[in-house]
Amino acid sequence: MKHFTSVADVPDVPTLIAAAAAAKANPYQDENLGRHKTLGLFFFNASLRTRLSTQKAAENLGMKVMVVNLNQEGWALEFQDGVVMDGNKPEHIREAAAVIGQYCDIIGVRSFPELKSREADYAETVLNGFRQWSGKPILSLESATRHPLQSLADALTIEELWKQHPDYGKRQPKVVLTWAPHPRALPQCVPNSFAEWMGHPSAGLDLTIVQPEGYELADEFSSGAKVSYDQDVALEGADFVYAKNWSSYHQYGQALKLDRDWMITTAKMSITNSGKLMHCLPTRRNVELADEVLDGSASVVIQQAGNRVPAAQAILKQLLLAR
Amino acid sequence: MKHFTSVADVPDVPTLIAAAAAAKANPYQDENLGRHKTLGLFFFNASLRTRLSTQKAAENLGMKVMVVNLNQEGWALEFQDGVVMDGNKPEHIREAAAVIGQYCDIIGVRSFPELKSREADYAETVLNGFRQWSGKPILSLESATRHPLQSLADALTIEELWKQHPDYGKRQPKVVLTWAPHPRALPQCVPNSFAEWMGHPSAGLDLTIVQPEGYELADEFSSGAKVSYDQDVALEGADFVYAKNWSSYHQYGQALKLDRDWMITTAKMSITNSGKLMHCLPTRRNVELADEVLDGSASVVIQQAGNRVPAAQAILKQLLLAR
Amino acid sequence: MKHFTSVADVPDVPTLIAAAAAAKANPYQDENLGRHKTLGLFFFNASLRTRLSTQKAAENLGMKVMVVNLNQEGWALEFQDGVVMDGNKPEHIREAAAVIGQYCDIIGVRSFPELKSREADYAETVLNGFRQWSGKPILSLESATRHPLQSLADALTIEELWKQHPDYGKRQPKVVLTWAPHPRALPQCVPNSFAEWMGHPSAGLDLTIVQPEGYELADEFSSGAKVSYDQDVALEGADFVYAKNWSSYHQYGQALKLDRDWMITTAKMSITNSGKLMHCLPTRRNVELADEVLDGSASVVIQQAGNRVPAAQAILKQLLLAR
Repeated sequence: MKHFTSVADVPDVPTLIAAAAAAKANPYQDENLGRHKTLGLFFFNASLRTRLSTQKAAENLGMKVMVVNLNQEGWALEFQDGVVMDGNKPEHIREAAAVIGQYCDIIGVRSFPELKSREADYAETVLNGFRQWSGKPILSLESATRHPLQSLADALTIEELWKQHPDYGKRQPKVVLTWAPHPRALPQCVPNSFAEWMGHPSAGLDLTIVQPEGYELADEFSSGAKVSYDQDVALEGADFVYAKNWSSYHQYGQALKLDRDWMITTAKMSITNSGKLMHCLPTRRNVELADEVLDGSASVVIQQAGNRVPAAQAILKQLLLAR
Repeated sequence: MKHFTSVADVPDVPTLIAAAAAAKANPYQDENLGRHKTLGLFFFNASLRTRLSTQKAAENLGMKVMVVNLNQEGWALEFQDGVVMDGNKPEHIREAAAVIGQYCDIIGVRSFPELKSREADYAETVLNGFRQWSGKPILSLESATRHPLQSLADALTIEELWKQHPDYGKRQPKVVLTWAPHPRALPQCVPNSFAEWMGHPSAGLDLTIVQPEGYELADEFSSGAKVSYDQDVALEGADFVYAKNWSSYHQYGQALKLDRDWMITTAKMSITNSGKLMHCLPTRRNVELADEVLDGSASVVIQQAGNRVPAAQAILKQLLLAR
Repeated sequence: MKHFTSVADVPDVPTLIAAAAAAKANPYQDENLGRHKTLGLFFFNASLRTRLSTQKAAENLGMKVMVVNLNQEGWALEFQDGVVMDGNKPEHIREAAAVIGQYCDIIGVRSFPELKSREADYAETVLNGFRQWSGKPILSLESATRHPLQSLADALTIEELWKQHPDYGKRQPKVVLTWAPHPRALPQCVPNSFAEWMGHPSAGLDLTIVQPEGYELADEFSSGAKVSYDQDVALEGADFVYAKNWSSYHQYGQALKLDRDWMITTAKMSITNSGKLMHCLPTRRNVELADEVLDGSASVVIQQAGNRVPAAQAILKQLLLAR
């Protein structure tokens, strides 16, 4: 695996999930693999889970980690070619990425969408700039359109839990990705990636995406899923409920309405098949998810967050081995 | 020791001081104790001494350290239960602390008081939130009402110096905690903790607190000390003078007056018994302390700051051993 | 070598360049030298290359590294003696440096000039404050007037490339430091240091500095170089072209004019003797340097940036050995 920016970079997803499970069972099995290797983590946007879990994963592998908060430290980069750089941007991605590539063996990059232009965001300018000019493996720490580190942790969580289910081996689990309300307009990264990873036949899932009219994800992501507009119908018999807000793809970046009826409550969960509640966090309590659900036994959000470490570790290991 | 948030968490203070002295004498005696353990340091407020000394202490023990400046990185947390989170706070302490607990073996937290509401500050909402929800040992890096890492360093400094005094073993040292002027209204954390640690009978000290009318500390902290309002009388015969500004507890958070006469000068020190001058730093020169005192032989403030490392190391060792 | 703040701190430059080349050939040859030693990196101004390359160099030597962005974290220091500190500055350099010296074995400091007062900037107040009060070796990460870490990387780059040149051993290389346009007024640090290092007889170079009228560097830096005002004449026969903007020294801190004719283009490079193009980065494309030059085979700017690691490593090694 040369880069990790989407599921398309992964040769075989089930093997990667198994590697993440192995890393969780024995976190220090490869603690010398990363000796003399440096991971650079570059954040254009704030991060808590991704930063800490990826740093810990790298250190479990014996790597050194350097963290730079580019947004705070004033490094506005120019990504367009051919411009006369007499404005506010002190450096071009061609130099910045190539220089960073001199100091780091693997480069992690977080860059959120601006949610102003679909074309600009879906071009993945920042991530692709690093991929093109750094000469080193790129690890997405969440880009404009995807969050694959989260998706691998999600897949590991579902596998762990489904293996303990009485129906394991008898049928596929029913997984429902449901839109949920939020006061702000959020990226589509997490649902895009979740749909892309879980909608693939090799995932062995029965995936439904449910959202209000106007919140449909791009076809390239949702094509492996059933699509529904009725949350109550979709939740029927669900083994896993993945709740998440996202802004509109078709009316790009807009929060069309804050439909409080879509909040996940105990009543909603009672429609499911004793379903587990998942969320990538952070979440707005009593807007996306009711207190009663988050604090109840159906919630697996903390286990899911904990799985960010072995997920990142399995990926870093593959990137180290491919060098 | 399961947590370190106040002197009440410490089973035996003299043993802890002895452990800090041992760590200072041989900083690498336990350099494998923290192997595979991660300390997370989370700052809601800026830090220089505490951050560097605690990081160094953890690394002396072989731990990994992850530092997050939450205030700068935009993580405003919700601490109130039951609220509809449709405002500016993206995450609740229940999730944030539990997630951080997945990535860290020990969690250090710095959170200053707002000095607006005594009830709010003295409830120690932030520190207690992490303590309640993270599932991991909590290390106070200075909270709304206490700074116990500083107090242990202070205790170590007094012990080191008193052992060299001709009267050592013959009498208790006289220690005076004196209010000093400052242009801003400051927390009561350092004097509260100092009083709480040094006023305990096991400290073997004769402690006096002196301040202008209106600056009395809360009884729960000052009950082990003599209280005075006359600085010159209080300083008579002092072996140690701990100077520090604090805002009013009773007229909560207010700077009642900036009484320049309380600045520690050579004339003031001449009243003492060749007393040593202590201060937690940072200090305002020629407001709290005169240049002549800080630059003279009575000042032990740099030794005191250096003692922050062995103090933190002794505490981290206890937290590691208790796991 | 007790400090590294200018070329004057270096006992023998050719030996140091050779040490940097050795560190590049075998980065882990001294990986136990820095065991139990801590490098503190303190930034009053933002940094990308210097921070990452110095951190990596220190870790190659087995050191621990602590990074503090003082500007972001709100530590405005007072540098003037004798003042009554009742304003906005919470701490004096005398305490701050001495305390940092308690926690770090080597102290790196970055502090740019304000470009308002030549006397203030050229007094190097910040760097000298740390040097005077910390009690530890000081490593300049770029100060008000010099950037010696950059200069050693530059010297290593020239040596590597000149050794491969057909005329190596037959004549001295011709090196031209040329002013180039930029939308902002920049410090003189990089050209000052480059002139100071390359103008010394032991460098074995034929150095020319070319700039528009009014941009002459201070004599103390440029005295070892030929000085020209005609870029085309100066570039004739050049083996190395070091392009860089700087503000006026004599009309202190001013950008006298943005003379676009001084941008380095393919046409300009064609005047040289198949010269290599150097720049410390970051650079403004199509203002300082044309795309065609940066993206062509004459550019060695990425190799030059990569050489920041072995340069820093050779210096840290000397500072460690001198302790």
